[in-house]
Amino acid sequence: MKLLREKIQNEGIVLSDGVLKVDSFLNHQIDPILMKEIGIEFAKRFENEGITKIVTIESSGISPAVMAGLELGIKVVFARKRKSLTLTNHLLTSKVYSFTKQEENMIAISSQYLSSTDRVLIIDDFLANGEAAKGLIDLVNQSGASVQGIGIVIEKSFQKGAAELKNLGYRVESLARIQSLTKGKVSFVEDAQEVTV
Amino acid sequence: MKLLREKIQNEGIVLSDGVLKVDSFLNHQIDPILMKEIGIEFAKRFENEGITKIVTIESSGISPAVMAGLELGIKVVFARKRKSLTLTNHLLTSKVYSFTKQEENMIAISSQYLSSTDRVLIIDDFLANGEAAKGLIDLVNQSGASVQGIGIVIEKSFQKGAAELKNLGYRVESLARIQSLTKGKVSFVEDAQEVTV
Repeated sequence: MKLLREKIQNEGIVLSDGVLKVDSFLNHQIDPILMKEIGIEFAKRFENEGITKIVTIESSGISPAVMAGLELGIKVVFARKRKSLTLTNHLLTSKVYSFTKQEENMIAISSQYLSSTDRVLIIDDFLANGEAAKGLIDLVNQSGASVQGIGIVIEKSFQKGAAELKNLGYRVESLARIQSLTKGKVSFVEDAQEVTV
Repeated sequence: MKLLREKIQNEGIVLSDGVLKVDSFLNHQIDPILMKEIGIEFAKRFENEGITKIVTIESSGISPAVMAGLELGIKVVFARKRKSLTLTNHLLTSKVYSFTKQEENMIAISSQYLSSTDRVLIIDDFLANGEAAKGLIDLVNQSGASVQGIGIVIEKSFQKGAAELKNLGYRVESLARIQSLTKGKVSFVEDAQEVTV
């Protein structure tokens, strides 16, 4: 997705060989117009999968997920990272380790909003080691619903998550795929390479 | 906002005289079509205020804020409830007590995304005692920007927040105003009363 790659190139800050900060449009400040374009792109890529629900995780997954939900005309459920007092019944839970925050979180979804007939699209802002995505897959599986695809805004293709999820048989659609962040520079996976990756 | 009041009436769960659960469309599952309507309504109410930025707080404020930002053509910044390792520089912070979660959180915004010339619309999902709104006002004030208005999805008018914010001189626009939650029933502030409240 060209618009997104340009935004990353112009505004992304490479903090280290592994960490890209995109706080100006995705993780802290949000660009709603870009989010709408991202929603349209996810909807286009998954429109033939019969998706009935989108599952994401707070907080940065919410904007792209809601825009995709708007395009597909379906509801979004966001997993919470810890229990809230008003979210206590019928909880499905899974553990997720965040390498960025160096901590383990419990993530939770109420089973009330997923049924065994749901065909789920998982959406998240980043895919690195795949911890969050695997936690969300676990929650969807617990509900009896099926994961039809995984939509990622920014994939760090040099980390293991994308390859692992594809090996598990999931369709992963990432709107920007980063090959490396070395020397403070963002390099994207080239189109030619995308065919074979 | 009629559509929202109907949604609250049909899907809201009164947990106690003070707590309304709207997890089916706002706080856990999100209805993107309703969120779009909410964004349109906020944009309409504040379109003459010269708003340049929306400030909200994770997680449930994000959807209505982003939809309002899309309509107004401006960016959204969401305050984080605790420090993240990739959000360390130029932090403005404030303390917020949550009665629902019975805990105090530090909320934070990077000063990079608010300038002294910004005219800010604060958006949040609920207004009860006004703790979150006052924390967000504090952050905006610290940046030197001005708060032009406060947009709330659901106001619990029987709690003190709305009156206090209005007494402080802020324009508060709440799309649904709840008069009481007694006896397990949601009663809205009537239009006739709204003039005098």
